Amino acid sequence: MDPDAAAMNASVGFDWRLMPHDIAGSIAHAKMLARQGIVPAADVDRMIAGLKEVEKELREAALDLDPALEDIHMNVEAALSKKIGDAGARLHTGRSRNDQVATDLRLYALSACGKLVLGLDTLRRAFLAQAKAHVDTLAPGYTHLQRAQPIRLAHHLLAYVAMFGRDRGRLLDAFQRLDESPLGSGALAATTFPIDREGVAKELGFSGVSKNSMDAVGDRDFAVEIVAAAALAQAHLSRLGEELVLWSSQEFRFVKLPEGYCSGSSIMPQKVNPDIPELVRAKTGRVFGDLIALLTVLKGLPLAYNKDLQETQEPLYDAVDTLHQCLRVMSGLVAGLEFDAARLGRAVGEGYLVATELADYLVTKGVPFRDAHDVVGKIVRAAIASGVELAAIPIAELQRFAPQIGDDVAGWLDAAKAVDRRDVVGGPAKKQIEAEIARLDKELAKK
Amino acid sequence: MDPDAAAMNASVGFDWRLMPHDIAGSIAHAKMLARQGIVPAADVDRMIAGLKEVEKELREAALDLDPALEDIHMNVEAALSKKIGDAGARLHTGRSRNDQVATDLRLYALSACGKLVLGLDTLRRAFLAQAKAHVDTLAPGYTHLQRAQPIRLAHHLLAYVAMFGRDRGRLLDAFQRLDESPLGSGALAATTFPIDREGVAKELGFSGVSKNSMDAVGDRDFAVEIVAAAALAQAHLSRLGEELVLWSSQEFRFVKLPEGYCSGSSIMPQKVNPDIPELVRAKTGRVFGDLIALLTVLKGLPLAYNKDLQETQEPLYDAVDTLHQCLRVMSGLVAGLEFDAARLGRAVGEGYLVATELADYLVTKGVPFRDAHDVVGKIVRAAIASGVELAAIPIAELQRFAPQIGDDVAGWLDAAKAVDRRDVVGGPAKKQIEAEIARLDKELAKK
Amino acid sequence: MDPDAAAMNASVGFDWRLMPHDIAGSIAHAKMLARQGIVPAADVDRMIAGLKEVEKELREAALDLDPALEDIHMNVEAALSKKIGDAGARLHTGRSRNDQVATDLRLYALSACGKLVLGLDTLRRAFLAQAKAHVDTLAPGYTHLQRAQPIRLAHHLLAYVAMFGRDRGRLLDAFQRLDESPLGSGALAATTFPIDREGVAKELGFSGVSKNSMDAVGDRDFAVEIVAAAALAQAHLSRLGEELVLWSSQEFRFVKLPEGYCSGSSIMPQKVNPDIPELVRAKTGRVFGDLIALLTVLKGLPLAYNKDLQETQEPLYDAVDTLHQCLRVMSGLVAGLEFDAARLGRAVGEGYLVATELADYLVTKGVPFRDAHDVVGKIVRAAIASGVELAAIPIAELQRFAPQIGDDVAGWLDAAKAVDRRDVVGGPAKKQIEAEIARLDKELAKK
Amino acid sequence: MDPDAAAMNASVGFDWRLMPHDIAGSIAHAKMLARQGIVPAADVDRMIAGLKEVEKELREAALDLDPALEDIHMNVEAALSKKIGDAGARLHTGRSRNDQVATDLRLYALSACGKLVLGLDTLRRAFLAQAKAHVDTLAPGYTHLQRAQPIRLAHHLLAYVAMFGRDRGRLLDAFQRLDESPLGSGALAATTFPIDREGVAKELGFSGVSKNSMDAVGDRDFAVEIVAAAALAQAHLSRLGEELVLWSSQEFRFVKLPEGYCSGSSIMPQKVNPDIPELVRAKTGRVFGDLIALLTVLKGLPLAYNKDLQETQEPLYDAVDTLHQCLRVMSGLVAGLEFDAARLGRAVGEGYLVATELADYLVTKGVPFRDAHDVVGKIVRAAIASGVELAAIPIAELQRFAPQIGDDVAGWLDAAKAVDRRDVVGGPAKKQIEAEIARLDKELAKK
Repeated sequence: MDPDAAAMNASVGFDWRLMPHDIAGSIAHAKMLARQGIVPAADVDRMIAGLKEVEKELREAALDLDPALEDIHMNVEAALSKKIGDAGARLHTGRSRNDQVATDLRLYALSACGKLVLGLDTLRRAFLAQAKAHVDTLAPGYTHLQRAQPIRLAHHLLAYVAMFGRDRGRLLDAFQRLDESPLGSGALAATTFPIDREGVAKELGFSGVSKNSMDAVGDRDFAVEIVAAAALAQAHLSRLGEELVLWSSQEFRFVKLPEGYCSGSSIMPQKVNPDIPELVRAKTGRVFGDLIALLTVLKGLPLAYNKDLQETQEPLYDAVDTLHQCLRVMSGLVAGLEFDAARLGRAVGEGYLVATELADYLVTKGVPFRDAHDVVGKIVRAAIASGVELAAIPIAELQRFAPQIGDDVAGWLDAAKAVDRRDVVGGPAKKQIEAEIARLDKELAKK
Repeated sequence: MDPDAAAMNASVGFDWRLMPHDIAGSIAHAKMLARQGIVPAADVDRMIAGLKEVEKELREAALDLDPALEDIHMNVEAALSKKIGDAGARLHTGRSRNDQVATDLRLYALSACGKLVLGLDTLRRAFLAQAKAHVDTLAPGYTHLQRAQPIRLAHHLLAYVAMFGRDRGRLLDAFQRLDESPLGSGALAATTFPIDREGVAKELGFSGVSKNSMDAVGDRDFAVEIVAAAALAQAHLSRLGEELVLWSSQEFRFVKLPEGYCSGSSIMPQKVNPDIPELVRAKTGRVFGDLIALLTVLKGLPLAYNKDLQETQEPLYDAVDTLHQCLRVMSGLVAGLEFDAARLGRAVGEGYLVATELADYLVTKGVPFRDAHDVVGKIVRAAIASGVELAAIPIAELQRFAPQIGDDVAGWLDAAKAVDRRDVVGGPAKKQIEAEIARLDKELAKK
Repeated sequence: MDPDAAAMNASVGFDWRLMPHDIAGSIAHAKMLARQGIVPAADVDRMIAGLKEVEKELREAALDLDPALEDIHMNVEAALSKKIGDAGARLHTGRSRNDQVATDLRLYALSACGKLVLGLDTLRRAFLAQAKAHVDTLAPGYTHLQRAQPIRLAHHLLAYVAMFGRDRGRLLDAFQRLDESPLGSGALAATTFPIDREGVAKELGFSGVSKNSMDAVGDRDFAVEIVAAAALAQAHLSRLGEELVLWSSQEFRFVKLPEGYCSGSSIMPQKVNPDIPELVRAKTGRVFGDLIALLTVLKGLPLAYNKDLQETQEPLYDAVDTLHQCLRVMSGLVAGLEFDAARLGRAVGEGYLVATELADYLVTKGVPFRDAHDVVGKIVRAAIASGVELAAIPIAELQRFAPQIGDDVAGWLDAAKAVDRRDVVGGPAKKQIEAEIARLDKELAKK
Repeated sequence: MDPDAAAMNASVGFDWRLMPHDIAGSIAHAKMLARQGIVPAADVDRMIAGLKEVEKELREAALDLDPALEDIHMNVEAALSKKIGDAGARLHTGRSRNDQVATDLRLYALSACGKLVLGLDTLRRAFLAQAKAHVDTLAPGYTHLQRAQPIRLAHHLLAYVAMFGRDRGRLLDAFQRLDESPLGSGALAATTFPIDREGVAKELGFSGVSKNSMDAVGDRDFAVEIVAAAALAQAHLSRLGEELVLWSSQEFRFVKLPEGYCSGSSIMPQKVNPDIPELVRAKTGRVFGDLIALLTVLKGLPLAYNKDLQETQEPLYDAVDTLHQCLRVMSGLVAGLEFDAARLGRAVGEGYLVATELADYLVTKGVPFRDAHDVVGKIVRAAIASGVELAAIPIAELQRFAPQIGDDVAGWLDAAKAVDRRDVVGGPAKKQIEAEIARLDKELAKK
């Protein structure tokens, strides 16, 4: 091969990740070949022993991977043949590189899903722990980045537990859908040998076998599905990154990031920069890019296997590694966040966050909601003009806008009370928060 | 508002799609307000009657949608208030536009998933019917667009049934994950009114309620998940489009597209162009684009609701409409395909597609597979040089390359026999194809 | 044609935008046919008169566009033939729909580039006007969203003039590259008629003609190039949107958005939401999506024209319309921004923004920069512990950290003086800002 | 720093590519510091000598890059300080890592543009050489992958020269736009030292200096612009890859790929697979992905520098490396293509490719084009029914459809003559092809 072409063709620079799966797949295949009488048992025994040795040597870096051998599969097979000679040349009986690589990739993908689910749960636990510590911390709830209504900080933190919980679900669904062994699909048309696909699948831990050999060798849906789930998880992480950057700014100062996750400036001695939240926010780009890379590769490919599919590996690896790294680093960072409860509490008191409560109060006095909303709008504008918050306006003054207002309004304009009045499932009332924490504690404990 | 700003702000140009869901949501909400004693039952009766009238008039285009009223929600509410006055102003009690639009969108998304699943199954049935008609049609199986091994045409067609079956699964998973009512989440912090979220959810057909109000109003994961599933389905359709373009070219001539799906040229009188397969292939681009649009919108948004989320609607609608249209048109087109069985059969006989069988034959004679592969490689090169296919080489000549070859080799070099020797689950042997057709018949019948 | 197929095939729902260009192209083509003696001059006269009538009627909506006629080209030609009969049937002599649509699209693209360049300059002028008004407004400059060094607000605003200036350049480059007439390329292989391509190109305002007919009919590079430029411009707009959202939050309160660009909440009476900056930020997603849509369509297409190219139109239109709308609305919004100079000034004084100046001061006293940086780091940490800013620390105290510090340090710790010391090209010193404003005034005046 | 955070923060794993630019930038900066009297000349001499040593040692791998030092800049500076002590600590006077990395990246980008332009021209030369060899090779021209009209193979090949020529233009435009030195912009607000920005820029080979320091440190437009140009070039390469896969299939057999660019199958001994064209086609995905990664990173970033920008480096490097590799390998592959002129010629004769000529012929006899098109449509359908090509139909038979047809029609139905009748600029007539080859020869010679 032309040297440039060989360099482009070689995949061992990234498919080394498949090594343990490749060896496991070969051992399961070899055992089956013996079981079915396709290859003599003695040869298979030598194959298995040889494969285990090759794995050990590769793990210990006692063997070099050779780009001239193109991919991990040929590297392993060549090393095996060097060890056991003729018997090695029988290993590829009844399979093809096409179903072999599909099998390896699925085993990798299953393990990647598992790893990411664990990573998500670790991060969710970090949020849950912070939520437990901040049930009683009042905070401003925002919409449009404008202060909106008072909440408990725990409520805000639990929103992330919910978001990352959905990511978990998507990865598990992907896991289940990909949990089929393609081995035995051959190059595209299965094989003429009387192989036992179900037996091999079982040995490798798959729940079943694929149903169409042409589909099986050309299918990389699982990579797209995992990377799509990762892209959305990363979008969630970008929201978290954004909030941490905001909240640690001089203007917000709601939280202090743990020092181990920040860095200084080469010229500004006073700077403590939120590097990690920024990087996590930015890494969203590469996972979105990985998703587009994968989808683009698949566009317009005729059946069954095409070499284009080699280009599906790196985006998958990159997305899995990136998300995993971000989850790890964010788990540590979130665990170390120090919220400024006093400052958060002051922020709740500034910006008319209880205006909605006043409108709701008026509804309880019989005013239709739309009208109540309008009246309170006027009150707020007057209050802004006077530079006072609602609770500071004398009741008589309020009554000039809405005669229905009575002394009992005070209980509605206190943020702490207001937040507990929001006592419906999913709401920020203490009772609801405690119930949700208990539910999540159970969910996250059992895993 | 500034006119340019108002034009940008208005969403009624696309969110009219939410109308039936908006009305259904309002009716369920109103009933609950009465049930909980939050709003007088008489007012609620008038609301419901009024909402039904508004829906009827909007369906019959007897009411105009007014961009000045910004969105479908305000259009409906304004029309209602015009009809029933004061009572209408009570409808918004205990909810916000933020949870209202989230509810509408989820109802739309549930129905979209259902529609797409039906569309996928219709296309799968079209493939299944063609597969039944072509169990006995031999065809060349390809890898790298090079003829590889003989298959049955049904096998190739069933690969698409498998691919679109996975798309179906992804949409159902999305359906289940999104099947939670966000109503009652308010603007972001639920509500102070003693609403019954579960009751409303049940009335609207949701399986449950969301667990965190801040998450619920800012969550558009379901849109991303559906569009990601649509993008992958569209990638599958692009593979189909590509194959139809190839197969209907003068070079392949494997299939004749039904006339109703082709068009001519403005200047070349002889042309019959595969316009529909090309357009379906191309429309993949817009769904990939919709996915990126959605993910980009979400990147870096702080909690909870931000106006940015308005931009999640159009990509969702476009992806759903595009995929639905492509599935419909492809269902008709696939049903009308006329395959040229004779030409497919001839193609199987040209290009040494049974070379693998010869190698496998040698393995049955005790030759290790790698060695058998090498020997057959030499035979093929000699055959190419002589311009003959393998079956045409005298046995004596074959034996010069591999003395193990006997008279029984003929049975291996016949494509029809070869394909039935590939008799493992997922393989192209007649028995396997028939079993898979039976399995799919059952799956696709029960729906 | 099958009705679903016809619906998919029809492009008149979006290519009506090409109407004026289609008519202009046909008139220029017709004139040439007469000039070259290919079609009798009398016929051509009737064509031109007829085309002008058709255009008038379409502009006045006196003619309906018929989807059954598929595209704008056939609609125009059919309307023409209805008017002038036989002569209309000669119009298509020596051209094909493939070079016709390529020509129409390029004429559209040229005009779109022009429109966007004007839109960019209008926005740049709005920034320039604000910059002129805020040369003397000090503001904190940020990196990592942490206060970093003092700047003039004008400096920050001029950064946007620079960014949008590059977008302008990219669109002009795209303009120049696409400024070639493809007419005469026929379906793919030019034409047998003795046409005059250069003459038609000149009449249509093109600077030249394309050099390869196969390339010309299959080339949509110009659409990709424009949309890529639009995507980057939109990324710049998203940065602006983000800053406006931040700066108008309760935490920053650096700016008040003009009321006409904000909206309220359906339930929170106090809210004034930055809807337009949020929408502009979000619309970035759709332009990124348009870019991916276009690139995906082109991937893997064989030469020359393929129907897939029909799918390149909508992303181009959407990107152009979106960017144009965002530029318009942002021009109005930026013009109406009211900055809070006092609050910006206070922010400059909080957060040790002159720490770098102190380090630089030490360098002037002979301390190597890295050492100066370390010393000042210690001073800042001590100041934070004491809760004072640098200017408030007694000199004797400062000297305990760095004996080189003298009385002259005060001039370095005053933000207003500090910023003028940053007197290099592109820096925030008043002199530099004024020079840059003068330069831009000249650039933006002459257009 | 937390170890996970440090691992995420470190960029030296990829920014080592900037090393030569970093050293060049530091040397130019240091010289200026001496020239301006900011740092003693003796110190600067030691810096320069030291930097050159560091570069030499890094090139020779005599120095290790240490991830603990985070990036290439700190690695270089640390190595320098180790060599020259105190003097090294003065190097960073008047600059910041923010303008330093911006400078390094621009120097890299300029050199990358140059490299890619050379790569494009090499590939264009390979096409031009093949075109020269195939001026007289007739080939079917396609639209919709249906045979359309006869062309010269050279014409098809020259279409690629035109496509890659536009890519060249885009890269040169990017080059010119980015050709401004940001050095001196400091962290975001320039510097208090009396530096000479223009002098440093000149020394580094830049054509000018940036005009706004806040913009300059946060600007990565040049990366987006280069990667967008690369994405489109890669889309062109994907079209080439697709055509090579098609043309080397058993069905087309128009071309034989050079052996050094193909590979075999692990189980199918007869296979010669077009691996390189497939990989090049697929690599389009990663460059599209790189583009989306970059754009996503930029979305919504406030000014000026944010750590997110670190994530713009890898997509730029990956896109540049990928395109460069694809151009190299395709240059070799295209040079080695062996076209089957006989088979191409036969293909021209099958499929009624001269139907348009017959219609054009009728126009010369006074038939309006649309009518001529319809008549020829009927003739072609009759010919298909009889299984003959147009040239084989007796004239008397043709006259039954169109009495205007005379003996002179034969000259129109001969593909070789037909193609030379297409004699307009950009057309496939021999004269035109030769002129275009001459033009390109000149263009590609002078570089």
